[in-house]
Amino acid sequence: MTGTAPAPFNADDYRARMARAAQAAAEAGLAGLLVAPGPDMVWLTGYAPTAVTERLTLLVLAPGGDPVLVVPALEAPDAAKAAGASALTLRDWTDGKDPYAVTAALLDTGGRFGISDNAWAMHLLGMQQTLPGTSYASLTEALPMLRAVKDTAELELLAAAGAAADAAFEEIRKVPFAGRRESEVGADLADLLRRFGHSQVDFTIVGSGPNGANPHHEMGDRVIERGDMVVLDFGGLKDGYGSDTTRTVHVGEPTDEERRVHDIVREAQEAGFRAVRPGAACQEVDRAARAVIDEAGYGEYFIHRTGHGIGVTTHEPPYMIEGEEQPLVPGMCFSVEPGIYLPGRFGVRIEDIVTVTGDGGRRLNDTTREMVLVD
Amino acid sequence: MTGTAPAPFNADDYRARMARAAQAAAEAGLAGLLVAPGPDMVWLTGYAPTAVTERLTLLVLAPGGDPVLVVPALEAPDAAKAAGASALTLRDWTDGKDPYAVTAALLDTGGRFGISDNAWAMHLLGMQQTLPGTSYASLTEALPMLRAVKDTAELELLAAAGAAADAAFEEIRKVPFAGRRESEVGADLADLLRRFGHSQVDFTIVGSGPNGANPHHEMGDRVIERGDMVVLDFGGLKDGYGSDTTRTVHVGEPTDEERRVHDIVREAQEAGFRAVRPGAACQEVDRAARAVIDEAGYGEYFIHRTGHGIGVTTHEPPYMIEGEEQPLVPGMCFSVEPGIYLPGRFGVRIEDIVTVTGDGGRRLNDTTREMVLVD
Repeated sequence: MTGTAPAPFNADDYRARMARAAQAAAEAGLAGLLVAPGPDMVWLTGYAPTAVTERLTLLVLAPGGDPVLVVPALEAPDAAKAAGASALTLRDWTDGKDPYAVTAALLDTGGRFGISDNAWAMHLLGMQQTLPGTSYASLTEALPMLRAVKDTAELELLAAAGAAADAAFEEIRKVPFAGRRESEVGADLADLLRRFGHSQVDFTIVGSGPNGANPHHEMGDRVIERGDMVVLDFGGLKDGYGSDTTRTVHVGEPTDEERRVHDIVREAQEAGFRAVRPGAACQEVDRAARAVIDEAGYGEYFIHRTGHGIGVTTHEPPYMIEGEEQPLVPGMCFSVEPGIYLPGRFGVRIEDIVTVTGDGGRRLNDTTREMVLVD
Repeated sequence: MTGTAPAPFNADDYRARMARAAQAAAEAGLAGLLVAPGPDMVWLTGYAPTAVTERLTLLVLAPGGDPVLVVPALEAPDAAKAAGASALTLRDWTDGKDPYAVTAALLDTGGRFGISDNAWAMHLLGMQQTLPGTSYASLTEALPMLRAVKDTAELELLAAAGAAADAAFEEIRKVPFAGRRESEVGADLADLLRRFGHSQVDFTIVGSGPNGANPHHEMGDRVIERGDMVVLDFGGLKDGYGSDTTRTVHVGEPTDEERRVHDIVREAQEAGFRAVRPGAACQEVDRAARAVIDEAGYGEYFIHRTGHGIGVTTHEPPYMIEGEEQPLVPGMCFSVEPGIYLPGRFGVRIEDIVTVTGDGGRRLNDTTREMVLVD
């Protein structure tokens, strides 16, 4: 799980979000939501425990009821300081007590509940054993779009995170690449993200030469050489909201093939971006980007989906993937990031965060998508 | 969840651990184990994914079968680099495929499985839906002592982590406390842990004055004053194994009451330590420490269990708590950490990591347990 950090919202904001979530649960036929520490909880309450342990912390939202946060007694004082604490009731439990019984007392004994994707399996098993008449669905399955549509304040925070990532790119393109290890450039990138306001760096992928052909290669000891393509994919959290952007740079002069592949990916990214409009299905964004790469003959080398949502995490619904028929809604924010990966040789990926507007899309990243040459 | 980091073991070590785990599963009547990224996986395979996302990564251990790691195709190259990779088979799946079907094909369709405590609920639900004839128990419930008994190499790593934490304490006691914020002293502590070899700092609790009375207060903006008791509880991972130690220091001269409370906690910690011997139940360690505090009249102010195990995490079984009848076994490692918390006034806690020897216990922390006076 990517980490979370509290964002600058107040108890009224969290009260409104919890009410909206309970309403959405009711509309989905759920008896309630069980929300674990992590992105759902921080978005709904502003509370992020210092450490997530085997001790149960669970926010219970039931339509028509007041929100209750079940929390270990030891952690109750910290929970009481969360920005959303005054919008909920704390229900603490002490070591030796059964936290599932405490939670079960708050629930219908026979309902269906949504539970955070990342809730611990041991806690789900505890609830299933304590209330055998209940059933469960993951929150992403039950309410996939719960956090997907951002409000104005959230959009501003995402735009600020994107601008900070862009500022980091404008600096990293000036540093020396040739002769340095990927991990050194990655450390520079992390420092830059922090310098431009990120409180947390989630990833700094530096994939040089053949390493760029592995989309999830993070960075390693490989010394970057003249002639390398280098995939730079970096992001994290600034004021509680995420950045995630990719540019592929070249050390010195690229070959014709490298230029061609980069051009195809740039056109695919542009096509994906142009497919963004209210009412279009998520899969249309994937199809639009993929069509460009397919038509250029590189379809088999585009081995991942085109994008993912972003918000209080750097990786969340909606997903831009074949089969996802969810219509786009103004305020949704997600990546558009096609790539071509030539095993053993090099990779190219270009990624912007895009938000859906009233009549199309707007990029939250604004650095050039032309190939940048570095030293 | 506390984080994990690979430790210096090789494929033979991991092969032996996976075989031992499969054997333990068979003895417990389980059809297999489903191991998620986190401490179980890093202990069994040396693999720690860069990020844990909604994409399923799951180690399948079935008695009589070879270990299989189900892994997203994008992450397969990284998984193949894990120290234990040659002791298992990688089974990758690509975006758009059903990872639960891939996993189900490896399993008995009607068995009972142990699943990592911290596996995501969405993945457990995916398995329950794909194989409705299966049932599940959390690994801590099914095989609570799977990682509890450390071998010689693990003990050396834990001892080294403890020594590094002790070195950090010997330095932190020299820094100025009065007039500085808790968060500043905490930052010093984190720097010291890293300087003495920690790759990861999990917590640096600095609880001054009334904040010390909240056992899980991390640290804050409070400016430490002369006359404060200050609880310092800090730990993390060094070479993949954990440290966790607490000392309570005093800024300037303590009052008689502060001395008395500190003495009681020190005696309770000593009593807990002396209760450690092979065959004693975990709860006896808790009872021994608690009896000292009860008899001194402070029983109601000792509001947590006496200890927890430590290994590739800083928080795991066995737990030193009333009701835990698990007998101690040589090689087990855990904290002994009684405390007294006087709400609104101050707290005292003293904690060492202790390992069970052939005939008693051995401390892995060795700084003075007398009250240290700081400036």
